[in-house]
Amino acid sequence: MFKNELKALLFDAAADSAEARVVRMLSERGAASANDLARATGLARSTISTVLSELRKNRVIVETAQTEASRGVGRPAANFALNPEAGTCVGFHLSLSEMRMMIADVSHSVIFEQNIPLERDYAPAAATDAAKRAIQEAYKSEVLPLSALLGVGVSIAGPVAPDGRVQRASILPTWAGVNIREVFACALERPVFANNESNCAAIAEMTWGAAVGAEDFVFFTIDVGVGGAIVSRGRVLTGVAGAAGEFGHMTLDPNGDLCRCGNRGCLELTAGLNPALAAASRLFGRDIDIEGLVRLAEQGDVGCARLIADTAEIAGRGLGMIGAILNPGLFIVGGGAALAGAILMEPLIASYERHTLVKRGDVPQSQQVRIIGAKYPRSAALMGATALVLRERPLPNHAAFRRPAFLRA
Amino acid sequence: MFKNELKALLFDAAADSAEARVVRMLSERGAASANDLARATGLARSTISTVLSELRKNRVIVETAQTEASRGVGRPAANFALNPEAGTCVGFHLSLSEMRMMIADVSHSVIFEQNIPLERDYAPAAATDAAKRAIQEAYKSEVLPLSALLGVGVSIAGPVAPDGRVQRASILPTWAGVNIREVFACALERPVFANNESNCAAIAEMTWGAAVGAEDFVFFTIDVGVGGAIVSRGRVLTGVAGAAGEFGHMTLDPNGDLCRCGNRGCLELTAGLNPALAAASRLFGRDIDIEGLVRLAEQGDVGCARLIADTAEIAGRGLGMIGAILNPGLFIVGGGAALAGAILMEPLIASYERHTLVKRGDVPQSQQVRIIGAKYPRSAALMGATALVLRERPLPNHAAFRRPAFLRA
Repeated sequence: MFKNELKALLFDAAADSAEARVVRMLSERGAASANDLARATGLARSTISTVLSELRKNRVIVETAQTEASRGVGRPAANFALNPEAGTCVGFHLSLSEMRMMIADVSHSVIFEQNIPLERDYAPAAATDAAKRAIQEAYKSEVLPLSALLGVGVSIAGPVAPDGRVQRASILPTWAGVNIREVFACALERPVFANNESNCAAIAEMTWGAAVGAEDFVFFTIDVGVGGAIVSRGRVLTGVAGAAGEFGHMTLDPNGDLCRCGNRGCLELTAGLNPALAAASRLFGRDIDIEGLVRLAEQGDVGCARLIADTAEIAGRGLGMIGAILNPGLFIVGGGAALAGAILMEPLIASYERHTLVKRGDVPQSQQVRIIGAKYPRSAALMGATALVLRERPLPNHAAFRRPAFLRA
Repeated sequence: MFKNELKALLFDAAADSAEARVVRMLSERGAASANDLARATGLARSTISTVLSELRKNRVIVETAQTEASRGVGRPAANFALNPEAGTCVGFHLSLSEMRMMIADVSHSVIFEQNIPLERDYAPAAATDAAKRAIQEAYKSEVLPLSALLGVGVSIAGPVAPDGRVQRASILPTWAGVNIREVFACALERPVFANNESNCAAIAEMTWGAAVGAEDFVFFTIDVGVGGAIVSRGRVLTGVAGAAGEFGHMTLDPNGDLCRCGNRGCLELTAGLNPALAAASRLFGRDIDIEGLVRLAEQGDVGCARLIADTAEIAGRGLGMIGAILNPGLFIVGGGAALAGAILMEPLIASYERHTLVKRGDVPQSQQVRIIGAKYPRSAALMGATALVLRERPLPNHAAFRRPAFLRA
């Protein structure tokens, strides 16, 4: 019986009982001590004790050893976690010609990962069909009960409106205007969550990565393009149309080259790695990808190191502009460029410092900006898609909730 | 007795009783119906009734007629307000060579306004001495009891750290590094609140102006310089060093002219009105200020209209960059340039649309960005300084609270 109970505690938006609050907190954090839970929920320590013993009796939660090593994405040492048998969630990350999939249980352990190749410019129906098949096969091969699949999170490159509609500015033209939550929910008959890939990556870093414990930070990705997300008081800012954090499309030069978004001179045209990769490929007479560029720079190729440093200089100017707007205490830098470590970060931090309003020397340490690399530069979007199920609440008018078939699953 | 009770309900940060919540809500909003209060506080309608009748008995609140015309800054039609006799607050706005002062009562009516001339580059002690004298004289001339002065709000041009320290980037060099809250609190022996002038202006627009009812918006000022504020979920974002919303200091051109902040090519060098004023003054052979420029443009001078439009074009690019970062649903445009109305707003909106990622036609109306003029383009900073007392809570370790003399006031 515990599965249905967990579903209700996690997803019934109206439920605000002490039980629901404890379950949601464990779902967000993976594991926590009774003291952590009291602090985070604001409930009395005695209430927490009662709730925990009730939830244990019903097998919704389990006690975990303080020193237990984590499987996969990491769990901090703590006392209680949701029972891994109580539910699983699936994440999908949609990119140009493939879909990546992850299964995790509610205790935050990763069970399964897979790449699903798709035709370039695949239609939404092709993706949902493949997703449905992949879920069925994976749950069969891993001997997982489909009835314990709590929800599905989807991550996509481009802004997603708060209602789930993919905006025109997405880099997947076949998805523009499609309500990604609805099409997946109809195919999968589960609650579906969807968000932009950078927002998902920020959520992954906040749940398991470099931003654990940070309530306010800016996530900035440098890959072939540039993107990001803003976390304020523990929540990702979406903006009115889901387009907050689109750092790559700040206009640096209104007379610059045309960008794929239809504007000119966007930041990502020069702060993304595409020009550096093109230059390196010309120089070496072969196709060089991000990993290749980083490897060459690490091996001492001064040209490749300079290409990364020049990209970092322009990206640092972008960080400086974000600094003038938001003055965040923490920047997390993700995307493939973060693989370069200090080769990227040193010129990036120097450029930020040159262009920012409040300089390091102006303020005490507690008011200085920290700029650090992401923990999961390449896989955070998929992890974050999975984490959406653990952290977000479904919309009350969610498609899956309008379908009576859903509750029969 | 009601004065001390009101002080405790407003300023005792630990008090979270139903009474304190109702009093704070009325303090923020000026006036509200019982239904408004139930909605805003989350308290049951029956609890609200009990609390209101108790507060009325103690003369902390008064019933106001639904149709009562407001004095000064405007009060929406509603049923209850704090008793105007229960307390007053004072706001100061510090600028280059003067200080402006406002007194309002807790029902949000403005009682008094005054300009206090000061020497250019006045020392902090000169300002606090003048403030003390001005308060004493004004309370005497208006026959107001000094014991009912609840707190003082101070607004200043430049970033103010969360603890009250004025940052180097302030345009008042004599204040850099000074803790503005502490020096005013020591002189005035009252709780003191302080914030950047743009943050104060945003608070004024949120309390009485173009942003009433808006929980999320960006306030953007175009005056001789450029500034602004970000309001997210009803709170002004301060940033780690108080420098959020410093839109004027986004780097447009890293090789551009030197800015007063020490960087090059900042937005305000071209999106502020200084270059337009200089050009118009040259053209007409006399000093032209913002009001003069706007008047000439309104009278049909195509050169002055073009100067404003060109400023709007660059400012609109700045709005577009903020749009890529925050994607707000609402921009409020304040500062002297807003006096120009459509002469400014039409090219500004067109420029925003050209440079923004998500275009108007991409999204349904509910996801489109609205850009509107401020209600108080020139006086919002002073009004907002006053509103700080009505809206903010003092820091627990606030100087005034460490002084036993305070409670004897």
